[in-house]
Amino acid sequence: MTSHTEQSAVSVLGLGPMGRALAAAFLDAGLPTTVWNRTPGKDRELAGRGAVGAPSPEEAVAASRLTVVCVVNYDAVDAIVRRGAVTGALKGRTVVNLTADTPARARDTAAWAAEHGIGYLDGAIMTPTTTIGTPAGVFLHSGSEELYREHRPVLDALGGTHTHLGEDIGRAAAYDIALLDIFWTAMAGYAHALAVARAEGVSAQELAPFAKGIGEILPPLFELGAEEVDNGRFSGEGNPITSAVSSMAHIVHTSESHGIDAGVMRAAEGLARRAIGLGHGTDGFLRITEIMNPR
Amino acid sequence: MTSHTEQSAVSVLGLGPMGRALAAAFLDAGLPTTVWNRTPGKDRELAGRGAVGAPSPEEAVAASRLTVVCVVNYDAVDAIVRRGAVTGALKGRTVVNLTADTPARARDTAAWAAEHGIGYLDGAIMTPTTTIGTPAGVFLHSGSEELYREHRPVLDALGGTHTHLGEDIGRAAAYDIALLDIFWTAMAGYAHALAVARAEGVSAQELAPFAKGIGEILPPLFELGAEEVDNGRFSGEGNPITSAVSSMAHIVHTSESHGIDAGVMRAAEGLARRAIGLGHGTDGFLRITEIMNPR
Ligand SMILES: NC(=O)c1ccc[n+]([C@@H]2O[C@H](COP(=O)([O-])OP(=O)(O)OC[C@H]3O[C@@H](n4cnc5c(N)ncnc54)[C@H](OP(=O)(O)O)[C@@H]3O)[C@@H](O)[C@H]2O)c1
Ligand SMILES: NC(=O)c1ccc[n+]([C@@H]2O[C@H](COP(=O)([O-])OP(=O)(O)OC[C@H]3O[C@@H](n4cnc5c(N)ncnc54)[C@H](OP(=O)(O)O)[C@@H]3O)[C@@H](O)[C@H]2O)c1
Repeated sequence: MTSHTEQSAVSVLGLGPMGRALAAAFLDAGLPTTVWNRTPGKDRELAGRGAVGAPSPEEAVAASRLTVVCVVNYDAVDAIVRRGAVTGALKGRTVVNLTADTPARARDTAAWAAEHGIGYLDGAIMTPTTTIGTPAGVFLHSGSEELYREHRPVLDALGGTHTHLGEDIGRAAAYDIALLDIFWTAMAGYAHALAVARAEGVSAQELAPFAKGIGEILPPLFELGAEEVDNGRFSGEGNPITSAVSSMAHIVHTSESHGIDAGVMRAAEGLARRAIGLGHGTDGFLRITEIMNPR
Repeated sequence: MTSHTEQSAVSVLGLGPMGRALAAAFLDAGLPTTVWNRTPGKDRELAGRGAVGAPSPEEAVAASRLTVVCVVNYDAVDAIVRRGAVTGALKGRTVVNLTADTPARARDTAAWAAEHGIGYLDGAIMTPTTTIGTPAGVFLHSGSEELYREHRPVLDALGGTHTHLGEDIGRAAAYDIALLDIFWTAMAGYAHALAVARAEGVSAQELAPFAKGIGEILPPLFELGAEEVDNGRFSGEGNPITSAVSSMAHIVHTSESHGIDAGVMRAAEGLARRAIGLGHGTDGFLRITEIMNPR
């Protein structure tokens, strides 16, 4: 340990839009902050606000007990930290990795950290850069609860809601993947709906108030559906999966009659038809959750 | 015209869950209501509340100036109304078709109606049976504004919000298709997310509070996105389409590592990669709306 030489409370590796937002929030909270980015020059504005720019990642991590990494993916994380000098400098220190990637990569990085005597927490940021340092930020964490408690005061400087999901290091990434799955699939559905609407002479802004109405019914349905999925009972009363495929077929047909790719809906319809083929036609649509996993 | 023989204010053809809800709302509003369903016996509860059960569709439609049809799809509508006796009985009367199908089918049905001197309005119901007769119901209508105004008082007995979308008869179906597209795609994303979460040891109810959070950010994003799509300017600032495909690749990879079908996300990722290949990598994700239509 070299804590007597540490001049910062936290170091930030990676100064993309998110890394810069994180560093700015630390500075706003009055925490001495050291920053580094692969491509130089990204720390200019932060330096003006008091950040110390480190010339190398090894010097950056040596400046603080806690290093927050936020780069594009874990290949980039590895390129930065899995080099002798940086790995050595991290020994006895802690890394909080807020980069997005898969649960498998999170577990692999934790194994590397354990092997080199590095404390490791894995996290995910669920909200855009504009929410960092505000109450709207949503942060998920996983890994050692003790380590999480120790560094919580620094993480709290980022504002928002922090949830520790458990000791399984892959958990934050698993939630992240699942939540991004919901988000990007819904956005793909919206984009497709707007393309079909336009082909029918309906503008996006004409559709939008009704699209908002559909968006608003989703959160309560998500909640109800979660109970069904956990209990394995899928009530199709009033809205059986056979009725869903009838709508889906109309969507695919209308889309393709305009020459608009309906691959997303075709894939969803295929799953629903498989559920019906397996004898679940009177169940609700979320029955497809059960049949997706081959086991 | 045979208005002196009409004993009801409205006739309802089709007594599935939705048809029954519509008839019940008319009765609750004090409107004399005649009902008919292909399979007998579905009108029992309604008869107890004062509905007149007609022995045939031609007798049902002859009982009122306005007939509301709500069956599974337009093949079923055709099977009921495109027969000499029913078509003849409808002459000079009005049909409001609240069955869901495609805009093309709505236009085809309107042409048939015009040919036979039948007033025709096409509509769509955007909310479940439980909302009928309550303020939560959402009804879309298209076709002649004059005809709509004439029958609006009867339709108002269904409660909720009624919107006339214009004279183009296919418009209600176009909105319906687009809105169901958003809805079912989002539900497919949720089902897939829950399957992946479970494979990672995360239960649906553990994920649900965060899933709700994702659901809640969709309506404002839909609104912002609609402006972008209508203006053809897709700001990727802070969240370019390249960043979306990076997330999508993580989702596909995690899903497939558990043997879970990722066809929906693969299709969405394919569209996004096509947009990037066409040089739109720094744009926002909704750029895919532009590239979906081949024209
Ligand atoms: N932006 C958001 O709203 C948001 C929201 C939630 C989560 N996140 C997550 O936060 C992370 C960072 O996102 P971001 O928005 O800041 O932008 P980004 O484009 O995902 O990442 C840019 C950062 O990655 C670095 N990088 C890329 N490849 C590298 C390599 N091989 N070696 C070293 N550094 C490398 C870049 O350095 P150079 O400058 O040298 O290229 C830059 O610092 C991502 O995992 C993202 O999914 C972002
Ligand atoms: N349920 C909802 O929450 C909801 C919400 C919005 C919109 N909708 C739309 O409302 C419409 C009706 O839906 P629903 O929920 O009542 O149930 P449904 O299962 O879609 O339709 C059942 C009705 O269709 C009739 N039918 C089917 N094939 C027929 C044929 N060849 N000839 C004559 N009648 C036929 C059935 O008669 P039999 O009894 O003789 O089989 C029954 O009256 C659908 O277009 C649906 O998309 C429903």
